[in-house]
Amino acid sequence: MRALRFHADHDIRVEDIPEPELREGAVKIRVAYCGICGTDLHEYLDGPIFCPGHDTPHPLSGETLPVTLGHEMSGVVEEVGAGVDSVKPGDSVVVEPYFVCGECPQCRRGDYHLCTKMGFIGLAGGGGGLSEKIVVDERWVHPVGDVPLDEAALIEPLTVAYHAVQRSGVRAGQSALVSGAGPIGLLTAAVLKGLGVTVIVSELAEARKEMARTTGVADHIVDPSQEDVVERVREITGEGPDVGFDAAGVNATINTLLNAVRPGGVVVMEAIWGHRAELDMHALVVREIDLRGTIAYVSNHADTIRMVQDGKIDLKPFITAVLGLDEVIDKGFDTLINRPETAVKILVDPSK
Amino acid sequence: MRALRFHADHDIRVEDIPEPELREGAVKIRVAYCGICGTDLHEYLDGPIFCPGHDTPHPLSGETLPVTLGHEMSGVVEEVGAGVDSVKPGDSVVVEPYFVCGECPQCRRGDYHLCTKMGFIGLAGGGGGLSEKIVVDERWVHPVGDVPLDEAALIEPLTVAYHAVQRSGVRAGQSALVSGAGPIGLLTAAVLKGLGVTVIVSELAEARKEMARTTGVADHIVDPSQEDVVERVREITGEGPDVGFDAAGVNATINTLLNAVRPGGVVVMEAIWGHRAELDMHALVVREIDLRGTIAYVSNHADTIRMVQDGKIDLKPFITAVLGLDEVIDKGFDTLINRPETAVKILVDPSK
Repeated sequence: MRALRFHADHDIRVEDIPEPELREGAVKIRVAYCGICGTDLHEYLDGPIFCPGHDTPHPLSGETLPVTLGHEMSGVVEEVGAGVDSVKPGDSVVVEPYFVCGECPQCRRGDYHLCTKMGFIGLAGGGGGLSEKIVVDERWVHPVGDVPLDEAALIEPLTVAYHAVQRSGVRAGQSALVSGAGPIGLLTAAVLKGLGVTVIVSELAEARKEMARTTGVADHIVDPSQEDVVERVREITGEGPDVGFDAAGVNATINTLLNAVRPGGVVVMEAIWGHRAELDMHALVVREIDLRGTIAYVSNHADTIRMVQDGKIDLKPFITAVLGLDEVIDKGFDTLINRPETAVKILVDPSK
Repeated sequence: MRALRFHADHDIRVEDIPEPELREGAVKIRVAYCGICGTDLHEYLDGPIFCPGHDTPHPLSGETLPVTLGHEMSGVVEEVGAGVDSVKPGDSVVVEPYFVCGECPQCRRGDYHLCTKMGFIGLAGGGGGLSEKIVVDERWVHPVGDVPLDEAALIEPLTVAYHAVQRSGVRAGQSALVSGAGPIGLLTAAVLKGLGVTVIVSELAEARKEMARTTGVADHIVDPSQEDVVERVREITGEGPDVGFDAAGVNATINTLLNAVRPGGVVVMEAIWGHRAELDMHALVVREIDLRGTIAYVSNHADTIRMVQDGKIDLKPFITAVLGLDEVIDKGFDTLINRPETAVKILVDPSK
């Protein structure tokens, strides 16, 4: 079968590899769609980061390079191994793409996303969604019912956003400020809106403001280059939003959020930082803000899928392109590097 | 009566002023002891900070300079105004030294410590503990029973520590790392120890390590100049302490804490910052740390006083000097500026 495999930075190849073999307790899935994630792009530019090395196998997958990429996948069950009873051939499913050890204190506490050895299927080994088929342990396979398979490929990043929203503790009827309307910011706004939260999106780029507008995820859109965000959100909410989400991850957004949310409010950091932040700690202290990190998801897939099934979130508008496996680098990565504001989610159909 | 009054930076005077008049709903207290706080020192060096200006009255006290200093006070009720029934003449009491508006969203929610106009008695006006007598509204007067009056003067800073511990959500049987063994760090350790938490104190200064040792508030003392704090606390606790407290407030302590607490742990920032922090945001995100600001206290006095009454905290060892009103600058501030590590709490007896 065909698979997109990472060999080294700037060396990603479409190759013919053997189909993975089904095993006891596992599920063979024919991949329908797989989203391209910023993480895949970072591996291409600067990897291996989450991928293992050529001589240093990942501690849980045991694999070395090359590995198949892709962790935002949907597909149809083709065959199930012995003992599998939660899904059957023909079911539409998505994959929660984890390797976890099951033994560390975090795993034992149920916080498996913080597992000391944690790896992602599609980065650390175990095959990937950027191939025609994949075999995944039953635990990580979630049925999606009649959610269309293209939309279902967005459930993985949507669950990242859902977990971030859970970390904030926000409730229906409260208000939220989301800074940055890239894919994670927009999906965070979508979850918030679906939960009955008043959503204010802050964004500079015209194309992204337009996306926040057309997808209907924002009740209000503010532009930090045009207006004072702290003043504007107070006009809208009174004392400031109850919670804030930093989906941009620069000093300006985090410090604006620390001052924009209400006293005693919560700010969730969704962005990955490659350098230290220059933080307005005084605001955090005297306003008693909670700044909470969030990473991936933990036991959130079922709730996220239900929101989509119940029509509380419409994922269709976030799909901005569907490519074949051969187009990932020339069209997909190229767009994400050179015109990122024009894309939300680029899907890949590995059968093409 | 005699009072220590702030006129301007480096201009604090012992003056004779009229005794405050009792009013309806208020309590006249003869001050027994008043602690010198770092805040008083900052007013002396760089004020007015929390004090009002000469022409700009505080919005709630309505007062301009000069104002009487001192907000960490204990005393004995001398007389009560009409309608006061929670205390009577002869009662030992402490003061929760607040001005709050009662009308802003925070006050209405019960978070009066985050009141938009909040001021402190003894800084913003309303008299102060560094005078012979003070009149305070009944709401802010807390009886302490038979707690000795010198120890009772430490209940204000102890309540700051108690509130910080509440902000962390720590429970008996869990573990905590406290960075910095100055007054607030030591009192935080004392509260934690009193609640049944395993306490690790991190400190560089010999005198402060010794104080952590002799007061018995630390189960373990680590010295960042001698050992790797992150490694050492893992040896002690396994995966890392459940919570951390930054009572030092420098880049090294906060970033060590973000990496030292267990994944999913909580770090409380107790220090006041005059500049931006260079924060290891990556650790906060991938380890899902909650970084929580804490300021002063809110509805915490009764619980804090009960811990002292129940013998869970012994405040006596934290009193390192008792001065007269004339000695505040030459002896008190001088020690806090030039030999801060030799003092924990310096008390003032305003009758002397």
